[in-house]
Amino acid sequence: MADNTEQKPEQPPVEGGAEGGEQGPSKKALKKAEAKAKKEAEKAKRAAELEAQRAASAAKEAADDKAKDNYGDRDVVKLEAPKVALKQYGDEHLGKTVKLRAWVQQSRMQGAKMCFVELRELEDWSIQGVIAANNEGEPVSKQMVKWVGAVSLESYVAVEGTVAKPLEPVKSCKVSNYELHITKMYCIARGPEMLGLTLGASNAAISSFEVDGQMQQLSLSEGGPGLSATLETHMDNIVMHKRAPLQQAIQTVRENVRDLFIEYLKKNDFHSFEPPCLIGAASEGGANVFGLPYFGKSAYLAQSPQFYKQLEIAGGRKRVYCVGPVFRAENSNTPRHMTEFTGLDMEMEIEEDYHEVIYMLEGLFLYIFRNLEERCKEQIALVRSIYPSEPFTLPEDGKEVRLTFAEGQKLLREEGPEEFRNVTDDEDMSTPQEKALGAIIRKKYGTDFYVLDKFPESARPFYAKEDPENRKVTQAYDFFMRGQEIMSGGQRINNPTELEARMRTKGVDPNSSGLKEYVNFFRQAGCPPHGGGGIGLDRVVAFFLNLPNVQLAAYYPRTPSRLTPL
Amino acid sequence: MADNTEQKPEQPPVEGGAEGGEQGPSKKALKKAEAKAKKEAEKAKRAAELEAQRAASAAKEAADDKAKDNYGDRDVVKLEAPKVALKQYGDEHLGKTVKLRAWVQQSRMQGAKMCFVELRELEDWSIQGVIAANNEGEPVSKQMVKWVGAVSLESYVAVEGTVAKPLEPVKSCKVSNYELHITKMYCIARGPEMLGLTLGASNAAISSFEVDGQMQQLSLSEGGPGLSATLETHMDNIVMHKRAPLQQAIQTVRENVRDLFIEYLKKNDFHSFEPPCLIGAASEGGANVFGLPYFGKSAYLAQSPQFYKQLEIAGGRKRVYCVGPVFRAENSNTPRHMTEFTGLDMEMEIEEDYHEVIYMLEGLFLYIFRNLEERCKEQIALVRSIYPSEPFTLPEDGKEVRLTFAEGQKLLREEGPEEFRNVTDDEDMSTPQEKALGAIIRKKYGTDFYVLDKFPESARPFYAKEDPENRKVTQAYDFFMRGQEIMSGGQRINNPTELEARMRTKGVDPNSSGLKEYVNFFRQAGCPPHGGGGIGLDRVVAFFLNLPNVQLAAYYPRTPSRLTPL
Repeated sequence: MADNTEQKPEQPPVEGGAEGGEQGPSKKALKKAEAKAKKEAEKAKRAAELEAQRAASAAKEAADDKAKDNYGDRDVVKLEAPKVALKQYGDEHLGKTVKLRAWVQQSRMQGAKMCFVELRELEDWSIQGVIAANNEGEPVSKQMVKWVGAVSLESYVAVEGTVAKPLEPVKSCKVSNYELHITKMYCIARGPEMLGLTLGASNAAISSFEVDGQMQQLSLSEGGPGLSATLETHMDNIVMHKRAPLQQAIQTVRENVRDLFIEYLKKNDFHSFEPPCLIGAASEGGANVFGLPYFGKSAYLAQSPQFYKQLEIAGGRKRVYCVGPVFRAENSNTPRHMTEFTGLDMEMEIEEDYHEVIYMLEGLFLYIFRNLEERCKEQIALVRSIYPSEPFTLPEDGKEVRLTFAEGQKLLREEGPEEFRNVTDDEDMSTPQEKALGAIIRKKYGTDFYVLDKFPESARPFYAKEDPENRKVTQAYDFFMRGQEIMSGGQRINNPTELEARMRTKGVDPNSSGLKEYVNFFRQAGCPPHGGGGIGLDRVVAFFLNLPNVQLAAYYPRTPSRLTPL
Repeated sequence: MADNTEQKPEQPPVEGGAEGGEQGPSKKALKKAEAKAKKEAEKAKRAAELEAQRAASAAKEAADDKAKDNYGDRDVVKLEAPKVALKQYGDEHLGKTVKLRAWVQQSRMQGAKMCFVELRELEDWSIQGVIAANNEGEPVSKQMVKWVGAVSLESYVAVEGTVAKPLEPVKSCKVSNYELHITKMYCIARGPEMLGLTLGASNAAISSFEVDGQMQQLSLSEGGPGLSATLETHMDNIVMHKRAPLQQAIQTVRENVRDLFIEYLKKNDFHSFEPPCLIGAASEGGANVFGLPYFGKSAYLAQSPQFYKQLEIAGGRKRVYCVGPVFRAENSNTPRHMTEFTGLDMEMEIEEDYHEVIYMLEGLFLYIFRNLEERCKEQIALVRSIYPSEPFTLPEDGKEVRLTFAEGQKLLREEGPEEFRNVTDDEDMSTPQEKALGAIIRKKYGTDFYVLDKFPESARPFYAKEDPENRKVTQAYDFFMRGQEIMSGGQRINNPTELEARMRTKGVDPNSSGLKEYVNFFRQAGCPPHGGGGIGLDRVVAFFLNLPNVQLAAYYPRTPSRLTPL
């Protein structure tokens, strides 16, 4: 296979160019041009001679290089030695030859004949590689050591070497009790001469991020492991951002939250389905909806899969969930908002009481949180070493905290800060009120996770089912983590006549585009009572890990001011 | 809890109104009005008397009704009897009282004192209910039987009854060896007076669907179980469309394909991630991309998660997959196209040879197909009873069919129909050619599933890696089911210099918006060689089940002419 570096990009056509007007050149100009041409020819000749000398010298050096086949840039590398993952290394490998593919994390020449290279396989799994041109019989030359030392950081290499004990544990590598004596090394993909974001900076807490046009500084990184960069720099250098063990750990936590959500619901007979993103009407209110031209009509991007979850229930699926993107055209530049995020949504038939849904959701969250602590122990510890946080406390089994909204307001009035002494039961809670209540509940009940139920009807949308015993409140709830809402949900009205009446009471036109169709679904055939909720995955991860910005929990965060990377 | 039906919608304010001009009325007009008022007062009096009589009679009947608490419309129903799922019914339940929630699938009065109701619990699980007002001591009255007989079809009801043996097996119900002697029945949600799509029509093959403005008739339904409707009618009656056992079976097959995809990849150390839908540049070519206004700029909807999969590999995740929506603004009204569909995508690091990816994908598909036959045996049989199809044949282990594109063309030339005798190795295959080749391969190798590898470079995009031994072809492949492509993939170029050169050769500007950023990702840090593929979930399901239109495999199909339901 050909070496990639031989493929030079084609020269772009020169714009403008030297061809001037229509007049012929003067004699003086001709002479000048002649002299210039001669000079350039001589210069070219000298350069060619020098190049030939360099090539001859390089050829001689290469011919002399006993190790010349053991290193170099290669597109494809096949090595005979067995592959052993770094996390598997043990004393049984001592003295054995193994192979490894890794990124060059650090490298340091020691004199002209020895080089240390830190090789990172994945996440934070790295080992120290050593290469030395000491002995006649060994497959390593001075030229090879020099070449290894010159491989740029974050290049991807294939290495063969012998596992050995280092003189003392290597503190800078996770595999600290072994090192690799390199016998072969090939560069498969070169890193740049200069990284836009070093691994050290990428693996530190961000220094600052923008909120509504203002930079918000963070002091978190002071005790951190290295240099620090802005969120902007991280996003502009997305590859290095992702490679940092910190971000790998966050991604693994996120992946596990998602998987645990699915695991629990599947165990409880939920079916997955895929709601559409393209919808024909801005049914949930036009203000924060993205619109787009659609074959001569208009389409919108779904703000929530709720109506489709409800349709699945009407359609007979009993219990459904979906994981997918939801869109909000909200011009909010805060640490908690993105224009596209991942929704974890569920909906279920209610048999006798809407509390069935609350119990299911509580069970779901406790399952996620408890298993997360177990499955992602190392990742959580790694994130905490960079973004410090208190452990996320959970209630004991059977002691889940479930307050009504009114009970929550009462707690705020009686035990909250001065400014919340007059809150009433029929006004919605503000974010500061929620946080204050979170603090009271943590102190009183020892949990960071709890439910507020029976929200006032004024604080809920038209589809929320009223409490038949007290029509001032709804059978709707919010779930909280550390005083921050992570899920909204409730029982939905399943009777079309009742739904239209509620719409009118709330000043919503039941004949408007989208809503008319929505009401009619409940007329197509009898729909069982049902309820559910929608969880913002990015927020759950950010709040659980206490990250300063939800964008750090996302793969490709989108905000009003940023649609990149890509 | 209050009965929903008591909640009447508020009257909309009357527009216009009877208040006329400023002139006073004439004497004649006054007299006429007086007479009219008198007449109306008399009419109202008579109506009130009649209503009073009716009410008294109803009250008497209700008071006489010994069963009056055992039926009626209720919002919430709690029954004491144990719940037994229909699929669990056995002789041990004979004579026992059980409860059930179900849709009224059919009902038939027999005289005035007996009624048969078919009760469907979910999918195709139904049982015959019988209610008769025969004996003095029993909790069933003539009024109750009449009420049961009048409950509209597809209403959702809660039933209590005694399990009994029918005189002869009930052919119209899946549970044919038992019936339920109804003692209580409450209607939780009423179906309409008249269904827009009956269950029979909903559970039959569609009669026709539109292709490019023309109706395409189907003759499949002739042997089917009932009436037949157009795809359009199905979509307009989405709730009934979904409820049909046919559609439930298709949904379950789809769900299993998706789950099996994830299962296999997780077993092989793949990580899930979520790519963005909103992107800043129409990087894969502007023609078929949806664009939208985005806070004073433009955004686009992703046509594929490929670039983001590649970024995950560059970012160190080794092996990734994602399941999510992809968008195509293609004005194609065919049975195979939708504007939004679900992509199953995977990408992995290549260690030594790009065939690693082909083997992984082959293993993946065989795992899906083999387990599908096993897990969805009943559902597949049900679909085949309505949409007939040959079983989907698979190669034996170790005998997978993997041809190069050139070998495929050779087969077409040598064994294909007359018109394909002159196909060459450097032109792409047309859909009819693909289908003809599928037929040859099925005959020759006995499999409906196979791979074509090494597509000509002219048929592949700029990011496809060329074969180093023959630069006329690429290390890119398509996977086929029954002669129809279900997956495209290949090794991608991971070297930025090579990538730019290929772009120029293909006439693509590497400095254009989006592509410039794409190339630069490979410059941020060395990216390992990698390859993968993207599968259209809807098509896999449709081709596997031999459905006449891919929309039948989708939950909420979107086409250029249709953005509804909702």
